[in-house]
Amino acid sequence: MTLPEQSRNDAHASLEGRVYNFNGGPAALPLPVLERVSSEILNWRGTGMSIMENSHRDKKVAAMALETEEDIKSLLGLGDDWKVLFLQGGASLQFAMIPLNFAPDGAPADYVNTGLWSDKAYKEALICGAGAKFASSSEADNFTYIPTSHVFSPNARYIYLTSNNTVRGTEWSSFPASPPAPLIADMSSDFLSRPLDLKDFVLVHAGAQKNVGPAGLTIVLVKPAFAATGKKGLPHLLDYRTYIESDSMYNTPPVFAIYVAGLVVKWIRDEIGGLARMATINRAKAARLYGAIDGSGGFYRGTARPDSRSLMNVTFRLPSEELEKAFLEEGKKNGLCGLNGHRSVGGARASIYNAVTDQAVDSLIGFMADFQRKNG
Amino acid sequence: MTLPEQSRNDAHASLEGRVYNFNGGPAALPLPVLERVSSEILNWRGTGMSIMENSHRDKKVAAMALETEEDIKSLLGLGDDWKVLFLQGGASLQFAMIPLNFAPDGAPADYVNTGLWSDKAYKEALICGAGAKFASSSEADNFTYIPTSHVFSPNARYIYLTSNNTVRGTEWSSFPASPPAPLIADMSSDFLSRPLDLKDFVLVHAGAQKNVGPAGLTIVLVKPAFAATGKKGLPHLLDYRTYIESDSMYNTPPVFAIYVAGLVVKWIRDEIGGLARMATINRAKAARLYGAIDGSGGFYRGTARPDSRSLMNVTFRLPSEELEKAFLEEGKKNGLCGLNGHRSVGGARASIYNAVTDQAVDSLIGFMADFQRKNG
Repeated sequence: MTLPEQSRNDAHASLEGRVYNFNGGPAALPLPVLERVSSEILNWRGTGMSIMENSHRDKKVAAMALETEEDIKSLLGLGDDWKVLFLQGGASLQFAMIPLNFAPDGAPADYVNTGLWSDKAYKEALICGAGAKFASSSEADNFTYIPTSHVFSPNARYIYLTSNNTVRGTEWSSFPASPPAPLIADMSSDFLSRPLDLKDFVLVHAGAQKNVGPAGLTIVLVKPAFAATGKKGLPHLLDYRTYIESDSMYNTPPVFAIYVAGLVVKWIRDEIGGLARMATINRAKAARLYGAIDGSGGFYRGTARPDSRSLMNVTFRLPSEELEKAFLEEGKKNGLCGLNGHRSVGGARASIYNAVTDQAVDSLIGFMADFQRKNG
Repeated sequence: MTLPEQSRNDAHASLEGRVYNFNGGPAALPLPVLERVSSEILNWRGTGMSIMENSHRDKKVAAMALETEEDIKSLLGLGDDWKVLFLQGGASLQFAMIPLNFAPDGAPADYVNTGLWSDKAYKEALICGAGAKFASSSEADNFTYIPTSHVFSPNARYIYLTSNNTVRGTEWSSFPASPPAPLIADMSSDFLSRPLDLKDFVLVHAGAQKNVGPAGLTIVLVKPAFAATGKKGLPHLLDYRTYIESDSMYNTPPVFAIYVAGLVVKWIRDEIGGLARMATINRAKAARLYGAIDGSGGFYRGTARPDSRSLMNVTFRLPSEELEKAFLEEGKKNGLCGLNGHRSVGGARASIYNAVTDQAVDSLIGFMADFQRKNG
């Protein structure tokens, strides 16, 4: 399959064979970012060495990390009451760090259960000794929607939610108004895909490997004033203050992943034009794809309730598991990769993160129509 | 400065300006590995996507990670009683995980104090509630040597040591014989630089960013039988069993860093010829450099006692801090970078890890002689 937006680069041998990537994460990265990375692997910014060979104590590396922090704050319009941190360990470590810091020794904490990842966060909070409880859940309806009515504890230390659910294809379009406790969110899979109003939030965490960069980097936005209320005496790497006080350089951070994330953030700002424009593009891609599903006369069936549909992960089923298997196999043969649903639910899923292009989505829509004609 | 071993590549523009890299870590990587990474950033192993864009659940990625594990076991001659794990968080997270798992609730654990990093490990163990104590220390002599006499506790759960000390330039040439408890070591800065006899060990951890790969990956060797004795009920990402049971894929691992480490491991095996040959090369490089220091008539003074000298980090002083400053500046102008001592001790340090070439070391030795002629 020839990919139109890449044919201009056909002098570049390694571009041949690039596929359309609908992976759930790690996922597609912007092509200009990958080309830049490739070009400066051997000599980064005139240092005479790779970014991987530079010391994290080098001024240029420290400046790059601070610049990435500032660029993220600027994209999101965050003030000095926020700090951007670069951690490791993914959302799974955040599932533990949050209750260890903010709901220790049985302190109450509310969780909204929208599927696999929020359930993991909740269970880890119990392991960590938090007095965690579900304030709401859509489990009875197979997590097909985002709950809108919640029973919050009057004394909860925080309310925890998962802004986008990669497995079930649901996403919060707006967050609880006037919550009785500060909000904390796992935004791993829609971070930097749209503007955010974070006035009711105190902490947001996001694995980089969906919209921002390679795996191995967890971006945490935190209000230092909130971090200061955390339990004292934790191991250093489990205490947010350690990262705040050291600009994420208490020990060696994942320098390469921060560097790639920095390039992606600049791509969003300079090539796309910021988060509002990014959201417009993402909404348009999702609208076309959901439109194709809804217009298929029931051949393709979206699994999420329309009011809760994710702009990032479009989950759908076909009339039978046999057809789903054929769909995934033929898609792959046509250069459309990563369309399998999460292993816990099956079916099909097109993850259309920031870096998934209009051409990729339109190519998928064309393939879906073809496949239906042949098999419908 | 023109680098001889790279002139053959002068068609490759980005090779121009490559310097000799003596960074303490992150540090030099083998040039053939960097060239390979650069060449396949856009399309890894025919997948049509970058290694950064591939799912960690993809069969090729899982196979790559398992192959890297097997290659490391094969290099070290480890049997099936060992497991190689890929973690995040660096040595600093291991400082906490080890006591949390193996010396919880005040259980005794012995530490050998050879400087900054072992002291950090010890202090973190106290934070984690271990009954940690120093079995020996060279602190009274400014950590200039590796202690050979230790007062081990009869009931210690483990004995913890730091095999190579980047700050003070000391390294264990052999480990305690017939220790009364299993050994655990931080081998961050000499891992895969020499063969290892691990019969008395149960756990070894190593940040990749010295000899093995980019920052953001911590390689842990552990005996599953020992891991099974760990405290139960810990947060998942702090329990070694989580990684053992999932082949390090409980959550998204740092795929790119594992990939680069895999290439470095193959470089050691195929280009160098294995760990015995690697050690021979490293010993020869260190011997030449220490020889230059010892033969300088006292202008350059090694800081470590000769019997404890590191083959990885060659630390030395000049007659005055002014001369040290000039040495570092002129070195940099001559393409010899990263020669500053650790910020906690000052002076000069040449880190001559696996990927630092003979030419780099000889170029440094030549520069040292020049500098002495002009300033001695």
